[in-house]
Amino acid sequence: MKSLFIVCDGLGDRLTNGKTPLEAAKTPNMDLLAMNGITGIMDPVRAGIRPGSDTSHLSLFGYDPFKLYTGRGPFEAAGAGIKLKEGDIACRCNFASMRNGRITDRRAGREEEGLDQLSKAVEKIKIDGVKLIFKRCQGHRAVLVVRGKGLSPRITDTDPEETGVPPAKSKPIDGKKDSVKTADILNEFTRKTIEILSDHPVNSKRTGNGKPPANVVLCRGTGINPHLEPFKKKYGMKGVCICATTLIAGVCRAIGMDTLDVKGANGHTDSDIGAKAKAAIGALKKYDFVFLHIKGADEASHDGNFQAKREFIERIDREVIALVLEEVKDTTVILTADHSTPISIRQHSADPVPIAILGDVRTDSVKKFTERDCAKGGLGRICGINLMGIILDLGNDAELFGA
Amino acid sequence: MKSLFIVCDGLGDRLTNGKTPLEAAKTPNMDLLAMNGITGIMDPVRAGIRPGSDTSHLSLFGYDPFKLYTGRGPFEAAGAGIKLKEGDIACRCNFASMRNGRITDRRAGREEEGLDQLSKAVEKIKIDGVKLIFKRCQGHRAVLVVRGKGLSPRITDTDPEETGVPPAKSKPIDGKKDSVKTADILNEFTRKTIEILSDHPVNSKRTGNGKPPANVVLCRGTGINPHLEPFKKKYGMKGVCICATTLIAGVCRAIGMDTLDVKGANGHTDSDIGAKAKAAIGALKKYDFVFLHIKGADEASHDGNFQAKREFIERIDREVIALVLEEVKDTTVILTADHSTPISIRQHSADPVPIAILGDVRTDSVKKFTERDCAKGGLGRICGINLMGIILDLGNDAELFGA
Repeated sequence: MKSLFIVCDGLGDRLTNGKTPLEAAKTPNMDLLAMNGITGIMDPVRAGIRPGSDTSHLSLFGYDPFKLYTGRGPFEAAGAGIKLKEGDIACRCNFASMRNGRITDRRAGREEEGLDQLSKAVEKIKIDGVKLIFKRCQGHRAVLVVRGKGLSPRITDTDPEETGVPPAKSKPIDGKKDSVKTADILNEFTRKTIEILSDHPVNSKRTGNGKPPANVVLCRGTGINPHLEPFKKKYGMKGVCICATTLIAGVCRAIGMDTLDVKGANGHTDSDIGAKAKAAIGALKKYDFVFLHIKGADEASHDGNFQAKREFIERIDREVIALVLEEVKDTTVILTADHSTPISIRQHSADPVPIAILGDVRTDSVKKFTERDCAKGGLGRICGINLMGIILDLGNDAELFGA
Repeated sequence: MKSLFIVCDGLGDRLTNGKTPLEAAKTPNMDLLAMNGITGIMDPVRAGIRPGSDTSHLSLFGYDPFKLYTGRGPFEAAGAGIKLKEGDIACRCNFASMRNGRITDRRAGREEEGLDQLSKAVEKIKIDGVKLIFKRCQGHRAVLVVRGKGLSPRITDTDPEETGVPPAKSKPIDGKKDSVKTADILNEFTRKTIEILSDHPVNSKRTGNGKPPANVVLCRGTGINPHLEPFKKKYGMKGVCICATTLIAGVCRAIGMDTLDVKGANGHTDSDIGAKAKAAIGALKKYDFVFLHIKGADEASHDGNFQAKREFIERIDREVIALVLEEVKDTTVILTADHSTPISIRQHSADPVPIAILGDVRTDSVKKFTERDCAKGGLGRICGINLMGIILDLGNDAELFGA
């Protein structure tokens, strides 16, 4: 049995004037899915845990983030297209501006002039005993991978997260040899970026043009690439990810899913989500498990924009769910979110998310796809880590435990 | 407080023409139990896990199968009446037929002629350094227990599960010494069964009569007997099992429960379940915890027979539950299942099972004992491993955790 897994990032919410954005939105197609399926609420990671997008997706795919997650770095690096090995250390990087040894702008003015050239210079940095892989991403962002023996993610950031201070010294969080070694490497890397970038012609040109120099690279979110059993091996299903968010694509790549680019998909509220839906439906021909990630609702939530969130939800209903209901047959369809992002607090919360599953399910009496309606559904309150088991079981592909 | 724990094997189901067999059945007594009790749904092992009957019963009795279960063998052996010791290795065996070194029938034609004599011959097999216990069970089936130091269940079967091939060589799954040793023992045992059985007069007689010889014993489902804290010590209750299924009786014996045989009880849909109910009610005089296992619904499910399942459920209602409601007082009564076995797929599924508890409970508004009604019940969605704690607590026999 094939599965189409639709995750609307940050969809869940709390009440604003007595309603959640999902309750306020007109969503006849989502409601039809709920009515003909089984519904419930889900804690993406665990009740009372505020999930990040990375930890929640790991959990939804059945990989225990409490055991496997150390930091965002490895998933950003995988999202940026770097093939990681088990034991690699990775962190997120920013090009930043310094003057007289102190950070003046953590993002180098978000000014991209010459960053490709500067990135090439940083890529040449070498440190004895390890291999460094540096890659520029969008804007002022980049990722750094350290490959070698005896590395540890238990170190602090070199990004001080404020201006007016020098780059922070990375320190081992525990006293272990591996952490001391890794912190030393990160500090040496930082020193070398300053050395190489300070007198770089690109920066002379930038300052000549009145732009802030990009004369240091700051690191944060260090994590170790864990051993993640490939999705195909774990579940016997060939999976593909349709997603415009680097971090989520990174999680999918880290578990060995294919990724599929869609023209016009950009992770914002003006993304061509209809095109993504078409691509997802098309991918069901070739893949057993199609994961469709839609970001916009989370963006509107972080902006605190109720109206934008409501309207984007209505777009998902019209442009994605309507098409799925019309065209997808003989497939388990799962509609849910990776976490709640309440408009009122503009950040992720631990409030459970609504979930509806269409397929060989025991239907319930819920008629609307909302947080509060689904709480009365036949699934009850489930945990994200168990979702893949439920999906496999509904497709009659789950292994028997025992005899 | 005494407890009567009624498990209807494979009771849960999915929808066939919009209804589950339990919904289609007339069950006024089960409904009364639900109406006067508290209801819910339960994942016998964990949400999304397809339980076997052994793992699910371990879980329902509060023994974590993820930690304790290695294979079905030890529970079959205990069910066959062998008193196992911690660390014993046990597997299920078949008498099978071979010709020119290849298996021709994995069940020796299900022909029982002379099997008692052949079994006596196999019982005499000796292997240096370990004690072997072999016991014939129903039909062509038997169990083998290997007792000794440094044994491991991490080995493959000698039963190839197909004909036209030689008996499989047992191999260690990991490279460990104990696994290598245990695989060697199983291979030597297989060789010796061939040696002893090939020229045995019983087989000459069988082949003379045109029957397939039983000239090899094949092994599968190897498991190690774990340390299982006795039920009485764990819960302070004297427990008894009324059950006609060897495997389930084996689980009960392995945790030190008494078992009680009932005339006419046979584990099939024509079992005298009324006699079992009477025996269970009678046992409440002597025991604190009476476990009544009723198999038929699972059998009908594996046969894909909706009508038979519905009718058997109605028999449980009339012959068991009616009697319980009439005669059992001052007792916590629990009615549930060990797993779902949907008619449509004829195998165990991970769909949660309905549960109703009669006793000192907070009643809810559920009026029917069905999968979908109970999903709206006051218990919500619970996990099998927590059930014994709930039962003890409702009987005011649970220990305080903390102060």
